[in-house]
This record gives sequence, C-alpha cells and structure tokens, in this order.
Amino acid sequence: MTEDDAKDPGPSRRDFLRNSMLAGAGLVAGAGSAAAQTPDPLITEVQPFASAFGDPVDATPYGMPIHYEDHVVRRNVEWLTESTASSINFTPIHALEGTITPQGCAFERHHSGAIEMSKGEYRLMINGLVDRPLVFTFDDLLRFPRHVLTAFCECAANGGMEWGGAQLEGCQFTQGMIHNMEYTGILLRDLLAEAGVKPEAKWIFAEGADASSNGRSMPLEKAMDDVMVAFFANGEALRKEHGYPARLVVPGFEGNMWIKWLRRIGVYDQPVESREETSKYTDLMPDGRARKWTWIMDAKSVITAPSPQVPIRHGPGPLVLTGLAWSGRGKVKAVDVSTDGGKTWAPARLSGDVKPKALTRFHFDMVWDGSEMFLMSRCTDETGYVQPFKDELRAIRGLNNVYHNNAVQTWWVKPDGEVENVEIG
Amino acid sequence: MTEDDAKDPGPSRRDFLRNSMLAGAGLVAGAGSAAAQTPDPLITEVQPFASAFGDPVDATPYGMPIHYEDHVVRRNVEWLTESTASSINFTPIHALEGTITPQGCAFERHHSGAIEMSKGEYRLMINGLVDRPLVFTFDDLLRFPRHVLTAFCECAANGGMEWGGAQLEGCQFTQGMIHNMEYTGILLRDLLAEAGVKPEAKWIFAEGADASSNGRSMPLEKAMDDVMVAFFANGEALRKEHGYPARLVVPGFEGNMWIKWLRRIGVYDQPVESREETSKYTDLMPDGRARKWTWIMDAKSVITAPSPQVPIRHGPGPLVLTGLAWSGRGKVKAVDVSTDGGKTWAPARLSGDVKPKALTRFHFDMVWDGSEMFLMSRCTDETGYVQPFKDELRAIRGLNNVYHNNAVQTWWVKPDGEVENVEIG
Repeated sequence: MTEDDAKDPGPSRRDFLRNSMLAGAGLVAGAGSAAAQTPDPLITEVQPFASAFGDPVDATPYGMPIHYEDHVVRRNVEWLTESTASSINFTPIHALEGTITPQGCAFERHHSGAIEMSKGEYRLMINGLVDRPLVFTFDDLLRFPRHVLTAFCECAANGGMEWGGAQLEGCQFTQGMIHNMEYTGILLRDLLAEAGVKPEAKWIFAEGADASSNGRSMPLEKAMDDVMVAFFANGEALRKEHGYPARLVVPGFEGNMWIKWLRRIGVYDQPVESREETSKYTDLMPDGRARKWTWIMDAKSVITAPSPQVPIRHGPGPLVLTGLAWSGRGKVKAVDVSTDGGKTWAPARLSGDVKPKALTRFHFDMVWDGSEMFLMSRCTDETGYVQPFKDELRAIRGLNNVYHNNAVQTWWVKPDGEVENVEIG
Repeated sequence: MTEDDAKDPGPSRRDFLRNSMLAGAGLVAGAGSAAAQTPDPLITEVQPFASAFGDPVDATPYGMPIHYEDHVVRRNVEWLTESTASSINFTPIHALEGTITPQGCAFERHHSGAIEMSKGEYRLMINGLVDRPLVFTFDDLLRFPRHVLTAFCECAANGGMEWGGAQLEGCQFTQGMIHNMEYTGILLRDLLAEAGVKPEAKWIFAEGADASSNGRSMPLEKAMDDVMVAFFANGEALRKEHGYPARLVVPGFEGNMWIKWLRRIGVYDQPVESREETSKYTDLMPDGRARKWTWIMDAKSVITAPSPQVPIRHGPGPLVLTGLAWSGRGKVKAVDVSTDGGKTWAPARLSGDVKPKALTRFHFDMVWDGSEMFLMSRCTDETGYVQPFKDELRAIRGLNNVYHNNAVQTWWVKPDGEVENVEIG
C-alpha cells in the first residue's frame, strides 16, 4: 500500500492488471477483437464530472495541487536534528518528473528558520576591499542587467546518511536534499564592479540576514564568474523559505553557499573561516584531519522511480525507469542503468534539455520479467568523471563523514514489486 | 500607487530616490566618500528578523508565495463573459520573470469549468480508423516511453480586445492568456501506433472529459509529430485547472487545441468540424467569410515591464526593460525594441535558453532621461517572419475579429513614470 493508493478512489488497479501488456479493452462497435471484454463504464457512461460545471475561473487566483496529490510534499525526519528551525526537509523527488522543481515542494535547509523580510526592508551591503563600500536597496538591484539561468542546488549532506549504509526507506529521504529551478537575477560581478574590487582582493564572504547569519567564503574567481543574486525562481518571486526577496545562486557549489536573505558581500584577501566552513561543511577523514573547500558537487545520479516509495504495482511487462543526474562541473554526458546490481549496464535516454550544472532527467524503457532486480544508475559528466561506488569513496574518506556522498544508489526490486534501499559495492 | 506599493511596508522609495544613480550609501568606517550620507538602520542595526527563529522546516509541507506577493495572481474580467465557469483568466505576466510560468498563476480557459477527476477514474479511448480500438487507464499510459519538452500555450484570443483599439490597462489583461511550462508525458504517436492507424486516416479529433466536451480536429501529421499526452507540468502533476491527470500538449498551436482532461482521440479521414472550429476559433473576415484552420500562433512579443501595472517609480537613470517573445513556428531569432514608437529600433538581449515553440525572455538595458517614451517590441522568428503592426493585420483581416492578434503592442511611458496602453500603427 503506497501513499498513492490511499488517495485514489478509482478502480484502476483491477482494470490495469487485466490489460497488463498495454492491450486495452476495445469497445467500439465493430471492433471484433474486443467482443469478449467487458465495456468500461468510466468511458462508456456519462460520469458526474462530465455532466456539471466545474470550478469557475475565479475559484483559485493562485492555485494549489489537487488533493489527490497531497502526498507530494516536503517531509522532514524528526530525529535528524534537535530543532525544526535549524533543520532540513526533503524534496519529494520520487514523485516528480521532468527537471524543474516547483518552489512549493523544493527542500529547505535553515540554520535559524525561514524569516520574513519585505522588499522595502531589504538591504545588501558590499564592503571590505572595495573602492566604494555600498548599500543597495532592493529597487537598486532591479536596475542592473538581468540574466536567466537554471541550476541545481544540492545540500552537501544529501545522501549523507548513506555513508553508514542503507538507512532511510525512500528516495525522497536518501537523495531529496536537491532542487532545480530557473532563476532570474543579476550577476554578482556587476555589483562588485559597481563597488570597485581592489587589486589585493582574493575572496568574498557572503552572509545572510537571518539570525544564524549563515556565512561562507568563496574565491573571487567564482564570484566574478557565474554567481547570481536571484530574485525570481521558476518565473515568480522567491518563496519566503528560499530567501525572499534575494538569495545567492552559486551554480555547481554546495547548497549551504547559496546564501538566502543575502545581506552582505565582504571582499577580502583571505577566507573568513566561519563556523560553517570549519566545524561544519568540511569532510572528516579517517586520520582525524578535515578536507575543506570541498565546494563542488561532483557528478551523481539516482533512479527516482521505481524506488521504495514507488513500488511496481502493475506486474511484469513494459516498465519505465526514471531518474535524475547532475554534475557541479558542467553537463551530464551519459547515464547508464543496471538492473542486476552493476554486472551489466545499458545507456539511459536523456530527456529534454541537458544544461550545465542543472538537473538532467533520464528515462530507461524496459520489459520487466517479474524477477528481482538491483537497480543502479551511474552518471558520467562532460569532464569524463564517472560517478563512484560507495566503497570507492569509503576507501579514501572513511566512515566519519556526512558530506559529499555522490555514490551509486541501489534499489532492490522484489518479485512482488516492493522496493528496498540496499547496499551493493 | 501600484499593487506593489500597497503591499510593501518598507521605506525603500525614499532611500532609493536618494541613491537614484545606483551609488548606494557607503557606511564602512574609512569609506571617505560616504561620510556625508546618513547610515541606513536597516543594514547597520539588528532587525527583528535577524534576532529570532523564523519558520521551521515543517511549517509548510507545500509552500505558497509570501503574502507580499499576493497581487501576483490570475485575474479575470467580469464583463468579458456571462459565466465564470465558461470564461478565462489572465497570467500576471507583468510581474513574472524568466521563462517558466508557475502552474499556480498560469491562465485558465474553461468551457464548462475545471473538473475534478482522479487517476483511477481516468480513461483514454482511441477509436475510429484504427486496427485496434483501445481504452487506456492512467497506469497504462505511465508504461509508455516518457519525454520532456517545454512549450508555450497561448489562447487564440490573446490580445483579442486590441483588434478594436487599446482597451485594457494592463499587460496581464492585454497579453496574459499565455503560459509556458516544462511538460513530461508520452507522445501521441506512440499511442496511435499501439492502436494501429489505418492507411486512409488523415485527421484526428481530440476530446475532453468535461461537460463542454471541448473537441478539436488536427491533421494526422501534427499528431504524429510533437503532440504529447502530458501528466506533469514544471516537474509536478498537472493542476486540476490545467487538466489533471492528463492533457494534450500541442506545441505552437492555439491553446484551445490543448485538450484538458483528455478522454478520446478519434482517428478519421476528414475533420469533425466541431462547434469549436466552426462558429468559434475561426477568423471572421471583412467580407463575411471565415478563415479556418488557423492553428499556428505566429511570432509575437510584448514588453511586460514597464507596463501599465508596472510604472517606473525610480525616476531617470538606469532602467531595465523586460519582456517575452515566442513563435509557434520555431525559435525566436531576435527581438528589437523601440522607445520612440517605432522610429528607431535596437536589439534586445535574449536571456537564458531559446527553445522552439517556447517563451523566450528578453531584456533591454537603457538609461532613461525622464522624457516620455512609446515602448514597442518586435519579434523575428527563425523562419524570418517579422511580427506585424496592428494596421497591417487590420488591412487584411478587418475589425470583426477576436483571434490571432500578434501585432506589436505599444506602451506610453509618461514623464512621471505612469504607463498607458496606446495604439500607434
């Protein structure tokens, strides 16, 4: 019994099993081959929804998902953190398709909760090693040249529980600290040019206006490259929980650096070494030392369905596998899929646009014979880098880690169609 | 006074005028040039939002826009139709950016209201000139190969009120019967192949499950090309008002053909000539005859801001113009902008991806001297077709029309920054 079953009152399961090889019931007079089949009242008889007015155009000035989809929501894991204001929730990637993540169900990570700030209250300071320290109002920012780009934002800890072995039953929970949106905003380099960066500057430090004052250092080269101060996501204003009215977009870099409610850019000759880049967001190695400045999210992929929250209910026959792939270093070049735990691999189709540092959708069309499968996907990016197995990562980085797990994820599909999170290699 | 002003409690207007040439207040000790300016408490003093927890991660399992953006909603025009169940509302394109239209504020057109149908109740019949008439359940459809594409959907009547001259004050109302989403679904040609199309078939007829039974004919060639039966839009399930659980996506063709709650595809040797393609959705010519089969939405563009709902409040200086361009025949090749009512033109920047039969965002960065402007945009598509002026269209099609107005739209910007819908050429 899945969440989907619970919501759907229709008789589809029985009908579907009847037609499990995609040969639907023929119903039209004269269609001889269908004579033995029972006419389907849902298509042959007038239904209530076909004989009355539906909702008028002023029913929902701003619409929400239909109630049948109420299970497609962000979810958090209560035991993960002490406070839900300093915590994380997960995108329902198991139930989504395509590449865009709607803002309404895109994961949130806050260090002191989602704050409410109006555009009128918004200020952005640029100070440090600049010719002219500046404070911008929100309206000021709207007068700089605007750009549009799509990028994934992945928490450095996405898949972090998996370092210790397969633990959470659900693609949403194992890999759902990721979203992908189309942003519109201005380039940080244009703001820095307005302030005038001094020759000795080598780093910037970006800081949020929330109580946690989440702040991160990054090299000036990145700040002058593709970093955006974004106001819009997927066409509309940023949602409160995503940093309204302005956040940093740092394509390819870990999510913690995408500062929300952005209040200050400091320009310096060295990194700040803040809490969020010393005690946190560094990778603890087996010898007790920590890797740091591990900003880039390496190539990764995951099969989103079937997965533990999306078992196969239709029995053997045609089966569509779908998943997501991405790389913080550029475009996804290929995704390979294995159904036998990595013994053999076959290429998946990349569906829709393949953009650099953005989620790429893949599909794999197969015929399932009803026996158990061990599903894996493996991404190769345009640099030639191939997504590793978990044991390869552990051999180098050990087990004392929560960050930067980009290993292959395995789903065990059982003959009854149920799916379990397991670990192979 | 605009909707935006009414919602925003902050003191940005005063501060902004003080800094109207983008030279913000310098506040850092040692920044000599800023010494004469007043420190800004919003950046120098601790604010309430920076000294308390914000919302926790379980506050909004599915999030909505922040209340400051409550004005960015679909709106209808009460006098336009007798019933709001058989009516239309408008996308707030004046307030959006980028290319994606969020489902929640994407325009709706219903002929008998938005109906509620579960996936279990869903059926799709294919009949007529096929080898095997078929009825598919929703789960059946999920077993066909899935594809991802982005496409604009424009009502044939978008801008229709403008045939009689500039009438509605607001880009939302003049040009807002359009949206642009990333769809995931299956190709209609794969379903037709499953049914087996007979050699004498030349047309299909697609029909919705709502009470209006909105139905449209289209050539088999189009059905076998890029027409999709879509389940997902912008990553998540279609909203109820957009045809949950399945609608037709007909790239480049008028919105009325994008059948929602798709229930049947008939395959025929001729068109059905339904009400929606005879008394409606044909173009009445001056001599009383009607143009029909005017499916393709020709190249068009509109400046979304500044526009009547988005006056210029910041006075002279740097100004960002933004707008949308599209063509039902392929990609947008160029957009030119005029600030003097068409006497001179300059190229706009195309921002982000340029996809065929999808909305393209353009930006135009200028310095406004504070004098009146007559803003126009003009799109050229990859076929070389250039968006016409209204008088050019009227010379051929007359005034007895509501459909297929793709003429250049003019906004009159007055010295005080107010914007009015006017007509030039």
